Amino acid sequence: TIIHLFKQIFKAGLELQEDDHSKALLVSRVKKAENTIVDVNGAKFGDGNPHYIFGPCAVESYEQVAQVAEQIKNKGLKIIRGGAFKPRTSPYDFQGLGFEGLEILKRVADEYGLAVVSEIVSPADVEKAAEYLDVIQIGARNMQNFELLKAAGEVNKPIVLKRGMSATVSDFINAAEYINSRGNGQIILCERGIRTYETSTRNTLDITAVPILKQETHLPVMVDVTHSTGRRDLLIPAAKAALAIGADGIMAEVHPDPAVALSDSQQQMNFDQFDQFISEVVNKKY
Amino acid sequence: TIIHLFKQIFKAGLELQEDDHSKALLVSRVKKAENTIVDVNGAKFGDGNPHYIFGPCAVESYEQVAQVAEQIKNKGLKIIRGGAFKPRTSPYDFQGLGFEGLEILKRVADEYGLAVVSEIVSPADVEKAAEYLDVIQIGARNMQNFELLKAAGEVNKPIVLKRGMSATVSDFINAAEYINSRGNGQIILCERGIRTYETSTRNTLDITAVPILKQETHLPVMVDVTHSTGRRDLLIPAAKAALAIGADGIMAEVHPDPAVALSDSQQQMNFDQFDQFISEVVNKKY
Amino acid sequence: TIIHLFKQIFKAGLELQEDDHSKALLVSRVKKAENTIVDVNGAKFGDGNPHYIFGPCAVESYEQVAQVAEQIKNKGLKIIRGGAFKPRTSPYDFQGLGFEGLEILKRVADEYGLAVVSEIVSPADVEKAAEYLDVIQIGARNMQNFELLKAAGEVNKPIVLKRGMSATVSDFINAAEYINSRGNGQIILCERGIRTYETSTRNTLDITAVPILKQETHLPVMVDVTHSTGRRDLLIPAAKAALAIGADGIMAEVHPDPAVALSDSQQQMNFDQFDQFISEVVNKKY
Amino acid sequence: TIIHLFKQIFKAGLELQEDDHSKALLVSRVKKAENTIVDVNGAKFGDGNPHYIFGPCAVESYEQVAQVAEQIKNKGLKIIRGGAFKPRTSPYDFQGLGFEGLEILKRVADEYGLAVVSEIVSPADVEKAAEYLDVIQIGARNMQNFELLKAAGEVNKPIVLKRGMSATVSDFINAAEYINSRGNGQIILCERGIRTYETSTRNTLDITAVPILKQETHLPVMVDVTHSTGRRDLLIPAAKAALAIGADGIMAEVHPDPAVALSDSQQQMNFDQFDQFISEVVNKKY
Repeated sequence: TIIHLFKQIFKAGLELQEDDHSKALLVSRVKKAENTIVDVNGAKFGDGNPHYIFGPCAVESYEQVAQVAEQIKNKGLKIIRGGAFKPRTSPYDFQGLGFEGLEILKRVADEYGLAVVSEIVSPADVEKAAEYLDVIQIGARNMQNFELLKAAGEVNKPIVLKRGMSATVSDFINAAEYINSRGNGQIILCERGIRTYETSTRNTLDITAVPILKQETHLPVMVDVTHSTGRRDLLIPAAKAALAIGADGIMAEVHPDPAVALSDSQQQMNFDQFDQFISEVVNKKY
Repeated sequence: TIIHLFKQIFKAGLELQEDDHSKALLVSRVKKAENTIVDVNGAKFGDGNPHYIFGPCAVESYEQVAQVAEQIKNKGLKIIRGGAFKPRTSPYDFQGLGFEGLEILKRVADEYGLAVVSEIVSPADVEKAAEYLDVIQIGARNMQNFELLKAAGEVNKPIVLKRGMSATVSDFINAAEYINSRGNGQIILCERGIRTYETSTRNTLDITAVPILKQETHLPVMVDVTHSTGRRDLLIPAAKAALAIGADGIMAEVHPDPAVALSDSQQQMNFDQFDQFISEVVNKKY
Repeated sequence: TIIHLFKQIFKAGLELQEDDHSKALLVSRVKKAENTIVDVNGAKFGDGNPHYIFGPCAVESYEQVAQVAEQIKNKGLKIIRGGAFKPRTSPYDFQGLGFEGLEILKRVADEYGLAVVSEIVSPADVEKAAEYLDVIQIGARNMQNFELLKAAGEVNKPIVLKRGMSATVSDFINAAEYINSRGNGQIILCERGIRTYETSTRNTLDITAVPILKQETHLPVMVDVTHSTGRRDLLIPAAKAALAIGADGIMAEVHPDPAVALSDSQQQMNFDQFDQFISEVVNKKY
Repeated sequence: TIIHLFKQIFKAGLELQEDDHSKALLVSRVKKAENTIVDVNGAKFGDGNPHYIFGPCAVESYEQVAQVAEQIKNKGLKIIRGGAFKPRTSPYDFQGLGFEGLEILKRVADEYGLAVVSEIVSPADVEKAAEYLDVIQIGARNMQNFELLKAAGEVNKPIVLKRGMSATVSDFINAAEYINSRGNGQIILCERGIRTYETSTRNTLDITAVPILKQETHLPVMVDVTHSTGRRDLLIPAAKAALAIGADGIMAEVHPDPAVALSDSQQQMNFDQFDQFISEVVNKKY
């Protein structure tokens, strides 16, 4: 019948349209079939093996960062993270040490042979920050700060791009495209939970976003188990699920003494918990 | 200082209150430390090993169910599911075969030595349905149909209780308590995705609900990978994540010919895909 | 070009499909252009004037209901509501007086010349309840309890159908269609807030659902300002917004002494607040 | 009993804590009881009368803006808006004319005696933009771009701050506090819909956020009816609801020929619709 014919054409049109769209994107798997591999100090995100980024929520002092770096180094890992520019809901919460924090990170990283990841929040700081950092992180609140994305697209440094709190998978992919369209294709996508009505966790870890992102793009995808759950007791189970579903890496927060941390004290691991995480997740053979 | 003292008392009060609440519930881990094990035809949900429930979305005919049963039996599995009473958004969609469907299920189950799981939607049908079924399922749309929960609490049959589309973990636990408070403690909780703004999946699989439910209750927890994702291509990855995070079981839909299925044709596995699921998930040794 | 032609056909196909769907529904404005008017004791919902349903959350005693009825009667209003079957999250919360509650409501309503609205939660109770009630309410938790909807479709009584906590507008319209498809077209739709991430209100009042529902269906649409906001201080502003956007009626809870109410004590109005509501909303001339 | 005593202290502690928090904020009603009035070219937002901001989504040309300005001027209104820096989901969508767009806006505004509102997206542009603009808008995607908020706090210009897509009321208030804490107290809050599961509107207009924001802060609160609904047919009803619930102003998009607009063509009013909006909303006497 005519109606049936119309429906077939309609479906074909729909698929055509979708194809058009994803073909256009540089980050799309349609554009490039093989995985992009982002090499951070020898940790090759996207090579099929899991890689890890640990460190304190915020840089508080040289000693604090050095203590964590020692733990990371001893476990044979290669990357440390720490926040120097902290986007905080209230202007009266601790805002981070800024460039002083980046200097601490760099000094420690050099001493321990680690690569450094830290969040940058202002387009004007990107170029200068690139001197201190091995990887620039763009946080969830800035996922659609397009000026920052453009600036990140113009440096020659790997970028960890976190998913916005209410970003769809499609919004997220387009945010990555902003970076790639300016020339920088070294992008690691990071699922970190989305905002839903559920309150038993800080956010809802959208675990199936991992295989979807890996299907639709050629970029490595990691999972931040700290911010997605907001609960120390869920870090290990969430990390296991993330690896099982195909994540290329895990990010989690570690602090020498979480109880006195200047931010996120409820969700960072202490060193004993870090040891447990290493033995149950990182060193586990599957 | 006085303020500090107040804050300590405040915190203590808060914890006291929460304790009170969870102590009261029969399903709470506080009330009973050891796992409840629900035995369905020898599949012991809650015993530490994963168990599986497969079958078509809807019962359509004896032949259709028998074909699926044969596949299940050949794989050494013990349980089949199939919908006879289908809660559908539109009154003009296929509503299921009703008791005729239950008869088909029972006949096939007897022939193949399988246990049968099917959804019941009306409190008045629970008792009669119990004659046909080994496990009664209460669906997401009925998770707070308290009359149905009460009726389910008065039969001596295991219940699979699905999480409501916008139920919090706490709502879900309380729904289980409705069943348990009437005497029936054989309850399997089933996470099946929650409704969020994200549209790349049918629902958002709330994977961390699994360890939370296992912490807070002593009940077995399974994951319906079909309804949470709504995408055939995500069934295997989602199942891997669910098992990795500690789920006691997986539910997924299988149909001899999904393309002509009377409901949910986009998300059911055909037999080749079912074989793949078995080899990648069920028979995988970890 | 061919592509352009395809796109035009695609769009036409899309519109065709949508038309098909909405044409099929009995509740659709496409099917019947003029407003359905539901007459409840002379209050004609859908006639262009606002009508009101007030009363306590739960029926607690004859005296309590009679006190509220007197207030309603004195204000020249015609309808009282009160819950006898209470769907509560926990099985240990007050579950309502059941048929005893309906008897109290009927007795009071007869004495004061009011019509009675009350929620029914079990399909088996619908017919018997119809002897006591002038309007049967189906609550948010039961919006997709399709057996209950079907039972409601078979009595000759107006139905107030509340929107489910995570129901889309389309789900809501289809739920109404379940009732109408069984023969009962006297349906009042009631927006009562949806579940979102926002916690400053109990639910998020989806105010634009009102004009959308009035465009898409010919049914009267009212707003429950009590459950959507969960805050006594927002009842008057929310009611003003609802009337301004075209709602056919408002539902709100009133209790002689909210502080000792057996349910929802935080959100019911006392008699002074009720007076204020009447003068600022009901008797206000626009 | 001891338990009861504890509960009383607990409640007192809870209230104390909340008081503490809101007392600290400069934007809080607790800090300053009377309304802040923000004067934009004689339109005094917060004075108890509604004020209006109309204009095209994006500045496309001098002629386009001038045509809209003439309409606005003829209707006796005082403010025009237009986007020059457009935050777009895809890097390949029209990104706005930038400073060239601001020049067009300023030229037109001078010719017609209107004040100009436009969005700024980069902290580095705030100072220069202040030379062109009467009001700086911070968009939803940048509500937690804290560097931008700080920059906005350091100019002497009114700021329209839009609510983030998944910002709670509390997040929103804290974002305003970032601006105020840097010295700029001329802030107009703008509710523009939140992201929920509902798809019949582009976002869900959280109408009760208006009275809550007015209770909790002393700032004027307006509603963007264009972005909250995303539907031209809902602009008038949504504006009526917003004014009825106490909004201090309305923002809506107007374009000489929406069908050819470079962005948001589905939701802008043409001039006939604008006339209708004026007669049904702006000139309506309540």
